[in-house]
Amino acid sequence: MPLGEFDLIARYFTRPARRSPLGVGDDCALLAPAPGQQLAVSTDLLVEGRHFVSTVAPERLGHKALAVNLSDLAACGARPLAYTLALALPQADEAFLAGFARGLHALADAHAVELVGGDTTAGPLAVCITVFGEVPPGQALLRSGASAGDELWVSHAAGGGLGDARLALEMWRGTVAVTPQLQALRDALERPQPRVALGLALRGVASAAIDLSDGLVGDLGHLLQRSGVGATVEADALPCSAALAAQPREVRLRCQLAGGDDYELLFSAPPAQRAAVAAAGRAGGVALACIGRIVAPPGLQVLAADGRALPGPWAGFDHFAGR
Amino acid sequence: MPLGEFDLIARYFTRPARRSPLGVGDDCALLAPAPGQQLAVSTDLLVEGRHFVSTVAPERLGHKALAVNLSDLAACGARPLAYTLALALPQADEAFLAGFARGLHALADAHAVELVGGDTTAGPLAVCITVFGEVPPGQALLRSGASAGDELWVSHAAGGGLGDARLALEMWRGTVAVTPQLQALRDALERPQPRVALGLALRGVASAAIDLSDGLVGDLGHLLQRSGVGATVEADALPCSAALAAQPREVRLRCQLAGGDDYELLFSAPPAQRAAVAAAGRAGGVALACIGRIVAPPGLQVLAADGRALPGPWAGFDHFAGR
Repeated sequence: MPLGEFDLIARYFTRPARRSPLGVGDDCALLAPAPGQQLAVSTDLLVEGRHFVSTVAPERLGHKALAVNLSDLAACGARPLAYTLALALPQADEAFLAGFARGLHALADAHAVELVGGDTTAGPLAVCITVFGEVPPGQALLRSGASAGDELWVSHAAGGGLGDARLALEMWRGTVAVTPQLQALRDALERPQPRVALGLALRGVASAAIDLSDGLVGDLGHLLQRSGVGATVEADALPCSAALAAQPREVRLRCQLAGGDDYELLFSAPPAQRAAVAAAGRAGGVALACIGRIVAPPGLQVLAADGRALPGPWAGFDHFAGR
Repeated sequence: MPLGEFDLIARYFTRPARRSPLGVGDDCALLAPAPGQQLAVSTDLLVEGRHFVSTVAPERLGHKALAVNLSDLAACGARPLAYTLALALPQADEAFLAGFARGLHALADAHAVELVGGDTTAGPLAVCITVFGEVPPGQALLRSGASAGDELWVSHAAGGGLGDARLALEMWRGTVAVTPQLQALRDALERPQPRVALGLALRGVASAAIDLSDGLVGDLGHLLQRSGVGATVEADALPCSAALAAQPREVRLRCQLAGGDDYELLFSAPPAQRAAVAAAGRAGGVALACIGRIVAPPGLQVLAADGRALPGPWAGFDHFAGR
C-alpha cells in the first residue's frame, strides 16, 4: 500500500524544530529573525535531465538540491538559517525518500540549517528548495561592487579546479572518454560543497561576489554587468584538476570557462586586500586562485599565456539556449 | 530565435523593487523584516495534471500559483510581504510567459506582495512559489488551538460554496455532465481568491485555522489532530452553490467534503466570539457559514439533517493515494 502524502512528510522530513516556533506541519512556518539582521532568500528548482542525471543516487540528489541553494547564501555572505522543500515525485518511493532525506539532512546539519516547511506532490521528479539566511545590513556581498583595479578570485577544492563537474557530465554523455578519475569528477558534479564559511569570511573583504552555477564566463558576465565594469581573465590561471589537465586544451577551456555546476565563489577584491583574501580562504577551508582583474571598459577578455585574447564567445550555460 | 533565460527573467519578472533593497537579480534577495515581527513562510509546488489542467490559460495559472500560497498566509493571519518564483518550462514561450506574468502580477499587486527573486529552467511545466508574510509574535493563527465547544466556520464567496472547484474539474474530466454554470465553476477552480483580509481580521478571534486545499474532511482532520480534539459537521450547513445543489446528493457531498482546491478558510472560534466572527467576515469581504462544532472525543462525524452520522470515510485529496 503506498504511503499517503502526509505519512511521507512525517516519516522523512519531520525533525525536532529549533529555529521555527512551530516545526513543520502548520499552514506556514514561523521564523523569528534576529533583531536588526537582513534576511537573504534564494530559491532553486532542480529538474531531471537539467540539474541531475536519472542515475543519480537519491542521497546525492538530496545533498545537491540543498547545496546549490546554500551556495547562493554563500555568495551573499549570509549565514544559513532555514529552508523549505517542495518535492514532486512520480510515486511515493520509500527507498528514494530515505536516501534523499539522508543526503539532505546531512548537509543541513553540517551547516546548521533547519527544514521549516514544505510541500509534496505527485509529478515528474523536481525539487524546489528555498533557503533563508541572515546578514547584517550593509554587509551582504553583492554582484554590483567591483571596481577597476580589483583582482578576480575563484575558490576551488585542493587538487580540484573549475570545470570538473562539466567534465564528469561529458564523460557520462559519452562525448569525452571515461578516465579513472571519473569517480572524483562525479563528486564534483553530484556533491558540490557550498562555500558558506568562505562567504562569511569575505564580508568586508570582497568588493563583489557571485557563485558559479552557469559557468565562469556567464556568471562573471552578470557580475560585470551589475558592477558596470569589464574584466580580463588569464586562461592559464584558472584552477585545473589533473583529470581536466589531461584533456585536450579545447575541452579543458570549455569546461573551465563555460562548464557550469562548479558552485565555487567568484569574487573581486582590491589588491590591498590580498592578505585578508588569503585569510578568508584559510577560514573557509578552500584554495583560492587569482584569475584576472577588473578593468574599466565593459566586456570580458580571456587571455592566453602570450597575452593574446582567446576568440569568444564563451557562452554560459543557458537553460533554454542549450549548453 | 529563442530568448535566453536571463532575458526572459528580465522581460517578464523584473519590476521596481519596494521591499527588497536589491530587487531581483543578485544571488539572494535581501529582506529587512520589520522589527519584532515574525516571518511566516509557505511554499507550494504546482505541476501540470495535478494542480492545473493542460488547457488552463497562462494568466490563470499565474494567478493560481500565487493564490494558493497567499491562502497559506491567510490561514496564519499573516500580512503578505514578498515571494520568490521558480519556474520550469518546456520551452521559452513568450505568449505563455506574458500571460503568466500578467496573472501573477495582478494578484500580487492586489495584495501588495513583491517578487524578490526566482529561478527559471527548462523542464516539464512546474511552478514553485515561496511566500513570506509578517505577523506579530503570538498572533499567528495556528491549527492547534481548537477547543471543545468552539464553533466551526468556513468562508465562501457570495453565491458560491465548497466543492465548486471540484465540480468544475469533474465536468472537465467528463464524469459529470457539463451545465451552463461551468464558466463560474471554472473560476472557482482557476481563480481562487485567497482570504488574506479575513485571515488578518481573525487574529485574536479564531482559536484555530487552516486553508482548504485538499478538501474539507482532510484539512479539518489536520486541524483536529493538531488540536487534539474531534468535531461534528452538519452536511446541510455546508455552503452550496446553485450549480452544485443541482447535482445528485452523492456528487454534492463528495465535492463539498473531499473536493479540494477550495482555498477557503476553515476556522474555529468560541460561541462568545460570534459577533467578532461576523465582523471579520465583513472586513474580509466574504460570507461565513457555521458548519459544526468542536467536540472533545477525537474523530470527525458528518451528520445528516436527521442527526444521523453519514457513513465515511470521506478521504481527502492525497497526492499519492489518488483522489
